[in-house]
Amino acid sequence: MPVEDKSVIEENVAKIPVGSIQAANGHAGSISFRSKSTMEMNGSNGHQTSHDSTPSMPWFGMDIGGTLTKLVYFEPTDLSEAEEESEVETIKNIRRYLKSNSAYGETGHRDAHLQMEKLRVGNRTGTLHFIRFPTSEMPQFLELSKSKGMATLASTICATGGGAYKFEEDFQRVGINVWCGPSCPLAAGQSPYEVNLTLHKFDELDCLIHGIEYIEDNNMDRECYYFLNPRNEETCEKVTFDFSDPYPFLVVNIGSGVSILAAYGPDNYRRVSGTSLGGGTFLGLSCLLTGCKTFEEAIELAAKGNNENVDKLVRDIYGGDYDRFGLSGDIVASSFGHMNSAEKRAKVSREDLACATLITITNNIGSIARMVAANEKIEKVLFVGNFLRVNPISMKLLSHAMDFWSGGQLKAIFLEHEQQYASSEGSSALPQTVCNLESRTQLCKL
Amino acid sequence: MPVEDKSVIEENVAKIPVGSIQAANGHAGSISFRSKSTMEMNGSNGHQTSHDSTPSMPWFGMDIGGTLTKLVYFEPTDLSEAEEESEVETIKNIRRYLKSNSAYGETGHRDAHLQMEKLRVGNRTGTLHFIRFPTSEMPQFLELSKSKGMATLASTICATGGGAYKFEEDFQRVGINVWCGPSCPLAAGQSPYEVNLTLHKFDELDCLIHGIEYIEDNNMDRECYYFLNPRNEETCEKVTFDFSDPYPFLVVNIGSGVSILAAYGPDNYRRVSGTSLGGGTFLGLSCLLTGCKTFEEAIELAAKGNNENVDKLVRDIYGGDYDRFGLSGDIVASSFGHMNSAEKRAKVSREDLACATLITITNNIGSIARMVAANEKIEKVLFVGNFLRVNPISMKLLSHAMDFWSGGQLKAIFLEHEQQYASSEGSSALPQTVCNLESRTQLCKL
Repeated sequence: MPVEDKSVIEENVAKIPVGSIQAANGHAGSISFRSKSTMEMNGSNGHQTSHDSTPSMPWFGMDIGGTLTKLVYFEPTDLSEAEEESEVETIKNIRRYLKSNSAYGETGHRDAHLQMEKLRVGNRTGTLHFIRFPTSEMPQFLELSKSKGMATLASTICATGGGAYKFEEDFQRVGINVWCGPSCPLAAGQSPYEVNLTLHKFDELDCLIHGIEYIEDNNMDRECYYFLNPRNEETCEKVTFDFSDPYPFLVVNIGSGVSILAAYGPDNYRRVSGTSLGGGTFLGLSCLLTGCKTFEEAIELAAKGNNENVDKLVRDIYGGDYDRFGLSGDIVASSFGHMNSAEKRAKVSREDLACATLITITNNIGSIARMVAANEKIEKVLFVGNFLRVNPISMKLLSHAMDFWSGGQLKAIFLEHEQQYASSEGSSALPQTVCNLESRTQLCKL
Repeated sequence: MPVEDKSVIEENVAKIPVGSIQAANGHAGSISFRSKSTMEMNGSNGHQTSHDSTPSMPWFGMDIGGTLTKLVYFEPTDLSEAEEESEVETIKNIRRYLKSNSAYGETGHRDAHLQMEKLRVGNRTGTLHFIRFPTSEMPQFLELSKSKGMATLASTICATGGGAYKFEEDFQRVGINVWCGPSCPLAAGQSPYEVNLTLHKFDELDCLIHGIEYIEDNNMDRECYYFLNPRNEETCEKVTFDFSDPYPFLVVNIGSGVSILAAYGPDNYRRVSGTSLGGGTFLGLSCLLTGCKTFEEAIELAAKGNNENVDKLVRDIYGGDYDRFGLSGDIVASSFGHMNSAEKRAKVSREDLACATLITITNNIGSIARMVAANEKIEKVLFVGNFLRVNPISMKLLSHAMDFWSGGQLKAIFLEHEQQYASSEGSSALPQTVCNLESRTQLCKL
């Protein structure tokens, strides 16, 4: 399903990506949300800092996905004395609040281990902070923003993901204007310049691809990696992947649902496939089957379980005699295939059920990705999205599946900032959120 | 994954297909079980009937799948007086037992509404009976066969499916010899001629394709059908499909797992894809989530449920505003995506959960089938396998998915004998089981 009419994406069109819109993209074909530069708004409001070509601080980017909202905040570390003095109290308070905490309430988290220092964004140097919270907490987030005086600021929040559309009215309610292009139906008589803070929506898939390209442009050459010997606990090794010559590559974006994009060159990509069986399916089924409450808990259970008590394997159907056909008896023939037996259900553990759920969802995504890669004749397959956070089981399964079934031709590639391998702490999605700021930079270049 | 070395399939190689081996085939690549004609055994044992070119009665074919065993029995209706007189008591008893019942114990069923009269198989005329029972009941079936004196008969049972391998020893234990080719490791000193009844194993995928071809050869021109307006309750119509010019076609065989075969011409097919998310997954998950006990019960629950209480739809992520992007808000973005919410879990019904499970599994199969069809440039997609039995929801979903996403290019085709549309009674898989007898016929032609 191609993103039609690429001519619409002009040089002066700002793009922002965020997390999980691809979920909504499930089987929906391409979705393009394009809008003109926000400079029309911000360039004329007289609130510019001494850095003339940049919009005023603070700089935020958001990806409002089906399950998780990912937020990046750029903290400038090159403030001049004059800037510090002229900076309004609200901005100082926001910075203090965000920096002093790594947990916001019960569900918001700043992933301190992911923060990127001395980053150059536009013509500024600073630190990029990564924050995430459940999208279901959006009303509370907006209340907090209101109480911190966000809406009084003369700036733009760049946002993408289905939630950028779903929560439009809620943003407006707390005094944040929503800019949705020249034909935007603003409140009667209201101009976009009347409200200081504006939410600017961007196409998620554009943002995702540009975010990945941003990483490459910034020579973060330790960002991409793959696994050697993914099935062998002892010899498994994480190896840096040189992504300096990226095209063509496939992006398998696993959020609540899954979108698969094929990128052939700069600004040349299309959505080629997707499935509604994604991270939301794993979490939802795990909650139902095990009574767990969080993604982290589901992953922990899965790591301790054995799917062979749940799934019907080849050897369960063929007996012990599959070897003579060159078959591996360990291959899953029917996911959850044992669970029609009351006897087997009585013996199964929560851990086994979580494990089978994880393997079912992961293998299905791997199988579809492999099919798409073969059709598109693409060998580099980037797996991104918060499903992979704290989830080495899936990463290794995907690595093995890509390698084994393609006879070594396909490579499963992961991003450091997508998740922390074997760590209990997670992250926001780097490509999208970095790109939030990147698109701000693009704005500034106009 | 091609079936390599087609030259092995010679004219004089008998083939039998049965139900659910494809489940074991999940992601396993092609599986070819080839063996030489059983005539070497049966041709020399002096038990031929007056119809010299046919092996002795009774004629049975079995498909021992991962979940269900499908059995066909050919009842000759053209017995000569001499034959009737010479017929041994055991055969008469078996015929009487099979014909007088439609239920065998608690789990065995003869699908009387599917039986085919005045069928010509080989040089005989008779009735084909369709019987099914859970593969888990195989030990009881074998005991019954023993008690009915089956093993004393000088004949061959043709079988396929993973169970033909798994239950080898069990067959031998009740006195049924298993012939597995020239290199078959028989009990020390035992020749295949010493035991009268022999289980002859055949490649399931060969059998499946030949079964479909058998239907075509026999001009059962009302066997194939498709749905017009599958999504519209009022205008939906079942229409006969002319399968007289069948090639190329795709076969999506949905048993416990799923195998997808591409058939390009007679004896020219290959296994192109598959998934472990099949009928066994639907049933296993439904049992876990709803406490139901049978496939029929799971389907009945699903028919009364609403997946929108379980799945996250596009409109749940985008809010009400998806229309302007040309999106349908009804598309599932994340299967089971609502179920991470305790509040939503508390409100969900067993029916909703069964419905979401059915839609998730069906859409995933449809999506993979569509991708394969596009790659192989094949427009006719036959959906077969017991997952479709008493399951109009899945058939209509598949019909719609094929039609809608291909812009009308792809056609989802079903078989009358695969299931009974909108009926509460089901059937065995015709193509495979008919082919069991067809392969017997081939044997006889040697």
